[in-house]
Amino acid sequence: MEEKLVFLLAFVIPLSCSAPPPNFVVFLADDLGYGDLSSYGHPTIITPNIDSLAATGTKFTQFYSAYPICTPSRSGLLTGRLPVRNGIFTDHSYPIDMAFRVFLPSNTGGLPSDEVTIPQVLKQGGYNSALIGKWHLGHVSCLPTERGFDEFFGLPYAQDEGCAPYFCPEEDRLLSWPGVPLYNNTKIIEQPVNLNTLTPRYNERALDFITRNKDNPFFLFMSYDEVHVPLFASKDFLNTSVRGLYGDATLEMDASVGLIMNKLKELNLTNNTLVVFTSDNGAWTRKELDGGSNGLLRGQKGETYEGGIRVPTIFSWPGKIPSGKVSMSLGSHLDLLATFAELASVKLPNRTLDSYSLGPLLLQDKESPRETVFYYRGKTLMAVRYRNFKAHFVTRSGWGEDPPIRHDPPILYNLGTDPSEQYPLQAKQYETVIDQITKIAQDHTKSVLPLPKSQLDEMEDFNKNIPPCCQLKPVRNCTCG
Amino acid sequence: MEEKLVFLLAFVIPLSCSAPPPNFVVFLADDLGYGDLSSYGHPTIITPNIDSLAATGTKFTQFYSAYPICTPSRSGLLTGRLPVRNGIFTDHSYPIDMAFRVFLPSNTGGLPSDEVTIPQVLKQGGYNSALIGKWHLGHVSCLPTERGFDEFFGLPYAQDEGCAPYFCPEEDRLLSWPGVPLYNNTKIIEQPVNLNTLTPRYNERALDFITRNKDNPFFLFMSYDEVHVPLFASKDFLNTSVRGLYGDATLEMDASVGLIMNKLKELNLTNNTLVVFTSDNGAWTRKELDGGSNGLLRGQKGETYEGGIRVPTIFSWPGKIPSGKVSMSLGSHLDLLATFAELASVKLPNRTLDSYSLGPLLLQDKESPRETVFYYRGKTLMAVRYRNFKAHFVTRSGWGEDPPIRHDPPILYNLGTDPSEQYPLQAKQYETVIDQITKIAQDHTKSVLPLPKSQLDEMEDFNKNIPPCCQLKPVRNCTCG
Repeated sequence: MEEKLVFLLAFVIPLSCSAPPPNFVVFLADDLGYGDLSSYGHPTIITPNIDSLAATGTKFTQFYSAYPICTPSRSGLLTGRLPVRNGIFTDHSYPIDMAFRVFLPSNTGGLPSDEVTIPQVLKQGGYNSALIGKWHLGHVSCLPTERGFDEFFGLPYAQDEGCAPYFCPEEDRLLSWPGVPLYNNTKIIEQPVNLNTLTPRYNERALDFITRNKDNPFFLFMSYDEVHVPLFASKDFLNTSVRGLYGDATLEMDASVGLIMNKLKELNLTNNTLVVFTSDNGAWTRKELDGGSNGLLRGQKGETYEGGIRVPTIFSWPGKIPSGKVSMSLGSHLDLLATFAELASVKLPNRTLDSYSLGPLLLQDKESPRETVFYYRGKTLMAVRYRNFKAHFVTRSGWGEDPPIRHDPPILYNLGTDPSEQYPLQAKQYETVIDQITKIAQDHTKSVLPLPKSQLDEMEDFNKNIPPCCQLKPVRNCTCG
Repeated sequence: MEEKLVFLLAFVIPLSCSAPPPNFVVFLADDLGYGDLSSYGHPTIITPNIDSLAATGTKFTQFYSAYPICTPSRSGLLTGRLPVRNGIFTDHSYPIDMAFRVFLPSNTGGLPSDEVTIPQVLKQGGYNSALIGKWHLGHVSCLPTERGFDEFFGLPYAQDEGCAPYFCPEEDRLLSWPGVPLYNNTKIIEQPVNLNTLTPRYNERALDFITRNKDNPFFLFMSYDEVHVPLFASKDFLNTSVRGLYGDATLEMDASVGLIMNKLKELNLTNNTLVVFTSDNGAWTRKELDGGSNGLLRGQKGETYEGGIRVPTIFSWPGKIPSGKVSMSLGSHLDLLATFAELASVKLPNRTLDSYSLGPLLLQDKESPRETVFYYRGKTLMAVRYRNFKAHFVTRSGWGEDPPIRHDPPILYNLGTDPSEQYPLQAKQYETVIDQITKIAQDHTKSVLPLPKSQLDEMEDFNKNIPPCCQLKPVRNCTCG
């Protein structure tokens, strides 16, 4: 079977003939695990607002991010293309590849300008778009407003990355967290940013954006800093959870979802807005109590076991998407681009996509067009899921010192019967399945060639002069006007 | 702090002044794990009917069975008393205690006749009660109709226990599954029972019971054989799940819940019926794919880690209990007796109870009266939970050959921040908490003395002549008129 790469717009019945195009709101958590919401089984993080999206929408149990680490995951979501196609992958090999997995303040790379993002696609339909929160796709000529968004209010990278370059002495890097700048569009308005008051300011900006765009189609991308370490919560949420600071931060995000949903209701937009809640990758369990839970899934952020890449995902659009439904259908962040394009009746970019429209699945209860998931680490295809079967060709822990191990035949699991990847199937008994997946893997690998220039691992790009605004020392005093 | 053992009926405002007493329906799964329902996070067992109870009711995330093994768990649920008080505990020590944890066909023991059961308590209010499904509290003068139920339709013990005594040669015991008899009240009507058609017959009987009692208060105890090994499913459910036979069996149980809920609706009884869904203990993960999942909880059936004893539990009573709520409040099967008694306005038995009425918690959003959980293995108090802290005084795996290990100071976890019991707290920093829990444990241990006669481990009771009806050999031909 060949992987179908082309979006099948021509073959589906138009989903919305006369209805106005919907607004889109995407809530993206950072490092929130598969098991960290009460609707996904967490016993002590109770998230009524996010759970309410599940009650009024469809909760997916087999939905994937594009990659088990932040930067490539986000590049996949925004472009509908695997990171290995859009240049957001490390080109280095074990062991130094560990250092080149996300953009750092000292990187000059970013989401390439020939990539087409969701806000650019939606602009054809007159959509205004805002990214509020974390970006993490480059800051040198690559800020969100330079890559399709009309507005940006947030951080250029993760809040554990300050202004000190990766190769600086550790004491500088440890000092660097407070050096993270807050942007309003392309202007730094606060540095170091006060993390504790960040989410309330995001909320304010989000409500303002919705209000300003209530008569116009819009795409709001709420890209929370929660629950990436270092954890934080504003004073209204500190110590409000029995799950500690991790729980407090999750509750603050949950409350933000509630505020935004209330605003949509107040402006009578609920029935004309498709809302998606998801996370950029699995929980970072190596952070112990500062990391979340992947529930019954094996592995964590950074790994190609399910816990690294399968994420809690809910779609809500009252009156359009069934309410209170739990769906086992396969889906991916990669599919948001094609889905939104179809629902907004705009054209897809003329290039190879890894994106399928989930419109017919969501709105007409059709089968998911997605039958495969590709699990990458850098440019290595580590594993492939085809329907319920997953073959691991290469395994490696997310953060350990261990080298990659190749498996021939691959280690095969049935994720339907064995979602925790505990009981490998006998290769002899599953030769047909293994042959099928191996063929899919080979065809896919050919299809991604030639690889574009890697944006993540150009060592010569590390440049101590480019971290935005601040001085290297003393970084705590680094502020901008 | 002393554990309060006495039910506080006198101190709460009556919950139902003029309303008629509600019916009670308890759905009890067998060995279903904390993570095995879609509403508790399972990705490939989708249980819309049970989930719908959560949507129309309150889902508990910290609800406990009385014991991590079947027989003592059920004795606790029915009597509101810990197994160590009601005689359903093994009196033997490591290692032979492993053999004396549940009633076998060759046991003469049973739930003592001086214990008072939920159906006996409710009989004061004119309730008719039926136990449909698995009993497992003795069969010699101890069948359900002899212990308070008006009707019994089901199996005397688990379906993996046939007619051969435990000490018979293994080949006899392996042959023995088909020897499990089906009772209608005190009469064996089929032996060996056809497991594959059992649930449809339970359903038929349950619908009939409800219909016959629609004008009378009733207590229906649906005590499913699912999902204890050996797994089975009727032809309508076989291969309907992607989770294999375990999933098929769960879906058949879920459908049964749906049938019964529909019947209540049809008879206009929904708003006058308190429904509880729960499981008798955690999933038996050592059975690998034939066992379920305890989600993010540590441990399994038979252990005093959370995975052994914390169970998925939902209360639904539309119009009375909040809908779509997730509650972290502590509760236990032990509390059903006091809760039902209060709601039915009948007196509690005049004896030491471990039961608290959850009525005010369920109906008036009060705090749970339960602050402690006692985790037993036989007559050994292994661990104590007090509010969010759990102290393990003794640990031991559920099924391994390992001896018990005593811990002084105890291993302490905060189950709020660390529900998976992964990060022990420093004893030095938590001396006050440890002292408090140690005092609770000591007071409790004194309070259970003197121990009653153990019903489970009288070796002289093993009697090859008492397994109901059938001959030892050839067991497959063992049938009754």
